[in-house]
Amino acid sequence: MTEKNILLKIAYDGSGFHGWQRQAEGTRTVQGVLEEKLERLLGVPVSIEGTSRTDAGVHALRQCATMRGTFGIPTDRIPPAINNQLDDIAVLSAEEKEEGFHARFSCVGKTYLYKFAVRPMVSVFMRNYACLLAERLNTAKITEAAKRLTGTHDFASFQAAGGTPRETTVRTIFALNVREGTGTDPAENSYDTFEVEVTGDGFLYNMVRIIAGTLSAVGAGILEPEEMDTILGAKDRAAAGPTAPPQGLYLKEVYFDKEALGNKDI
Amino acid sequence: MTEKNILLKIAYDGSGFHGWQRQAEGTRTVQGVLEEKLERLLGVPVSIEGTSRTDAGVHALRQCATMRGTFGIPTDRIPPAINNQLDDIAVLSAEEKEEGFHARFSCVGKTYLYKFAVRPMVSVFMRNYACLLAERLNTAKITEAAKRLTGTHDFASFQAAGGTPRETTVRTIFALNVREGTGTDPAENSYDTFEVEVTGDGFLYNMVRIIAGTLSAVGAGILEPEEMDTILGAKDRAAAGPTAPPQGLYLKEVYFDKEALGNKDI
Repeated sequence: MTEKNILLKIAYDGSGFHGWQRQAEGTRTVQGVLEEKLERLLGVPVSIEGTSRTDAGVHALRQCATMRGTFGIPTDRIPPAINNQLDDIAVLSAEEKEEGFHARFSCVGKTYLYKFAVRPMVSVFMRNYACLLAERLNTAKITEAAKRLTGTHDFASFQAAGGTPRETTVRTIFALNVREGTGTDPAENSYDTFEVEVTGDGFLYNMVRIIAGTLSAVGAGILEPEEMDTILGAKDRAAAGPTAPPQGLYLKEVYFDKEALGNKDI
Repeated sequence: MTEKNILLKIAYDGSGFHGWQRQAEGTRTVQGVLEEKLERLLGVPVSIEGTSRTDAGVHALRQCATMRGTFGIPTDRIPPAINNQLDDIAVLSAEEKEEGFHARFSCVGKTYLYKFAVRPMVSVFMRNYACLLAERLNTAKITEAAKRLTGTHDFASFQAAGGTPRETTVRTIFALNVREGTGTDPAENSYDTFEVEVTGDGFLYNMVRIIAGTLSAVGAGILEPEEMDTILGAKDRAAAGPTAPPQGLYLKEVYFDKEALGNKDI
């Protein structure tokens, strides 16, 4: 058997996890649960590397992870075998990649979705899946503010303390779209939604949540769209709006191919 | 201050609870959490009596409970004050009732909803809120079977062991409706739903889940609609279909007024 380099595509409900990254014994994380189940299935020690270290409560529609090793089961048998033992994680696919491929280092861009919901009468079913708002937001103003954040900027004002130190805080946002819609919760209460979808080449620590929180402040009339330029220029976290809570955030897509990112280009 | 008899209307996401009924310290139940928070708010010992002792994982869109006592805060201030401290429970309203009123003994009927969902591609967000099916069910057959269960029957075959002993297993189902529809999960995956809504004067232990499981067996072609008569006649749990899992079940409405039940009458 030769060594394989396997790319897993994964979805999860982040509600029951202390984030992606493996932590000390007893703390339930996505990486921790996946490695434990994979080790049991494959019979060898397994170490997986995720594209994004999502925080506690953050969801993934499409997270990616790579693992290398010599495994005694065909790659395409891994998802059904592992999903049998999983509950709030689903392995959507497993495919073999070339030797140098890596879930984090080969990634050229990501799309995140941030979901706000105008609080339905009964909100117990939505609390883990959106940021609940008391009132509708002004979408026209948010769209105007979003335009000012799109493109290549120094996003130092949109970076929380505590992340991995980075060489530069310049990032490119290819697309930042705002959508109004409606949804129904599992109990069929309908509610209005307001979503921010952002695609970029990379994101600083909590950057999407700070963008979402800042845009919600614009939508509520607390900040004006024009202030986005001042906030970017300040290069100071204190200049931007609040950090939106984790439960509204979904990692939606991971790109390894510049071509696939192309249609999101500014 | 005079003693009050207060009716609370309550909704909850049952996923994080070991059912309604208070249990030993350390076991999280809806009644336990509510009593603890109410005691802290009201400053006196509180005992609440629920209409339905929902099982672990079962949800409520409208559960009712009564509590008696001398409370130093106006009744209409209780919901906002208590909801501040609640997460997966919401107190929808609080109203004062006459002395003899009791959430369980004054109840004249209840409506339950049972939700099946045809498994979406990514089901991690639905696992706690519906029974996931691999394939669509035959609704025409289920509707035919549901008609045969409607009315006054001895439902001994639809009673699980382990419930409170009852004087009689005769119950009246006023309405048993089957609906097809579609839904979207919090990640906006859409899926087909198949729902059973049942209104009756009372339900035996696990009766709704056994009805839902039996109807799903009819929809899958395992049982024929005509067999409902045989199953009722057998008065034996083994004659009916499987017990559908708790996460698809929602207590939807509680009736204290025969007039309100009237439009559900057979």
